[in-house]
Amino acid sequence: MRVAYCGVPGSYAEMAALGYFGPDVSLVTTGSFGDAFEAVRDGRAERAVLPLENSSTGSISAVYDLIGRYGFSIVGEQLVRVNQCLLVKPGVQLEEITQVCSHEQGLSQSTDFLDQHPDWKRTAVYNTAAAARMVSEGTDRGLAAIASSRAAQLYNLDILVDRVNFNEQNQTRFVVLASQPHHDPRNNKVSLMFTLPHESGSLYRLLGIFAREELNLLKIESRPMLGRSWEYLFFLDFAADAIEQPLERILREVADYTSTLRVLGHYRQAEGVSP
Amino acid sequence: MRVAYCGVPGSYAEMAALGYFGPDVSLVTTGSFGDAFEAVRDGRAERAVLPLENSSTGSISAVYDLIGRYGFSIVGEQLVRVNQCLLVKPGVQLEEITQVCSHEQGLSQSTDFLDQHPDWKRTAVYNTAAAARMVSEGTDRGLAAIASSRAAQLYNLDILVDRVNFNEQNQTRFVVLASQPHHDPRNNKVSLMFTLPHESGSLYRLLGIFAREELNLLKIESRPMLGRSWEYLFFLDFAADAIEQPLERILREVADYTSTLRVLGHYRQAEGVSP
Repeated sequence: MRVAYCGVPGSYAEMAALGYFGPDVSLVTTGSFGDAFEAVRDGRAERAVLPLENSSTGSISAVYDLIGRYGFSIVGEQLVRVNQCLLVKPGVQLEEITQVCSHEQGLSQSTDFLDQHPDWKRTAVYNTAAAARMVSEGTDRGLAAIASSRAAQLYNLDILVDRVNFNEQNQTRFVVLASQPHHDPRNNKVSLMFTLPHESGSLYRLLGIFAREELNLLKIESRPMLGRSWEYLFFLDFAADAIEQPLERILREVADYTSTLRVLGHYRQAEGVSP
Repeated sequence: MRVAYCGVPGSYAEMAALGYFGPDVSLVTTGSFGDAFEAVRDGRAERAVLPLENSSTGSISAVYDLIGRYGFSIVGEQLVRVNQCLLVKPGVQLEEITQVCSHEQGLSQSTDFLDQHPDWKRTAVYNTAAAARMVSEGTDRGLAAIASSRAAQLYNLDILVDRVNFNEQNQTRFVVLASQPHHDPRNNKVSLMFTLPHESGSLYRLLGIFAREELNLLKIESRPMLGRSWEYLFFLDFAADAIEQPLERILREVADYTSTLRVLGHYRQAEGVSP
């Protein structure tokens, strides 16, 4: 199995791919989320592993948009614990730092820490591990990176401060994407994207289906669709055991209560967190 | 009235403050979201204007967190249309660009455009208008900014590409914050932050209150609270006319169905978009 991820060795995305597929998987690195979808479409990879939401900063809407645009299916998920560290060249002290680079999410997850150092220039790069590599390969002792301890090891950097992200329990949820759905009796989680009719109580009536069937909601999020006069796009995940639940019937009923509905995937819920 | 906002002249935050309070307001600029809250707490300003969500990139959870931490109230809101432009020094051509800077949200809103130029280094700075100022004050002709047309005018830059953000209807919702609630009979929108008991159907039962009272939901979002074994924090807005609705009774009923509840504000819903 060839698996595309967006990033470089040492990134959380690589950790997610290795966590899901095991150490023997053949990995394909891409330069953007969109390129990971392209890799699956043009056959360079059979699967793509991409981040869908982070417990501190919320949904990564660019990936939701791409799943919709490419018509791909979520076929699995992997949770990765995010432990951001401040990485520097060996021996560099805190006082020497003038600039810190990381992925945009790495910077925003570490806002509280960075706000204590308002004179540091913050530079968003492509990827947390790419930031670590920049520090490692450059000559500027004033440049620090926010990245994983794994990146510190790979790029021979010192961990000057551990856990600079504000939420100690910070996790990122990665999804495994394929061009076709993957049917498996162990699938027990469904992700939906839908719009609702403009009627009072329409969300309440929809959730009535899940309440009646005793299906637990795992996520719900509305996003205003401004092109369409304050209509909302909804992202909803629910727990659904394929054996016990007549899922087809439930999804037909969901379709009756929604204006547009796309089943993003039916897959197996992640049980543990890597590493 | 003195009003704090996070940014510099020409930023969308300044446009929001001017749009809400009018051109004669006394504005106080701050260097971070947290500093805008501090300005209100220590009396440098009576109000703070901060972004709470964007139609493309979703909720800005750092501001939700700060509202909770400071115990402030939302007393108003202002919608600002985001039209990001690629700004350069006068006369610079597209081929000369090597680096583009903007706020993190400006970069992520323009992903599609930037992905067409993978060789450009992307640098996240403090604020879109600060990015424009960097381009204006620096000597590097290869440096471009993603910011508003207003910033182009203020900092004497050329608009090389208009509308580089991927959603043409992109809007940011700013909220006006005060240390105390502001009671006004015209208030018609309520924002809540709550957790729910760990029971199947608990969200459905809560939404039943709003459906029964025919109160329209304007936003709902769940956010996993990982410190607490997959509990969820919810953000919910609903339309509530203070004259027609016995709001106190409804909120008491909401409190009965939630584990923790914080009323973030009762305020007047924005009707138009500035500019």
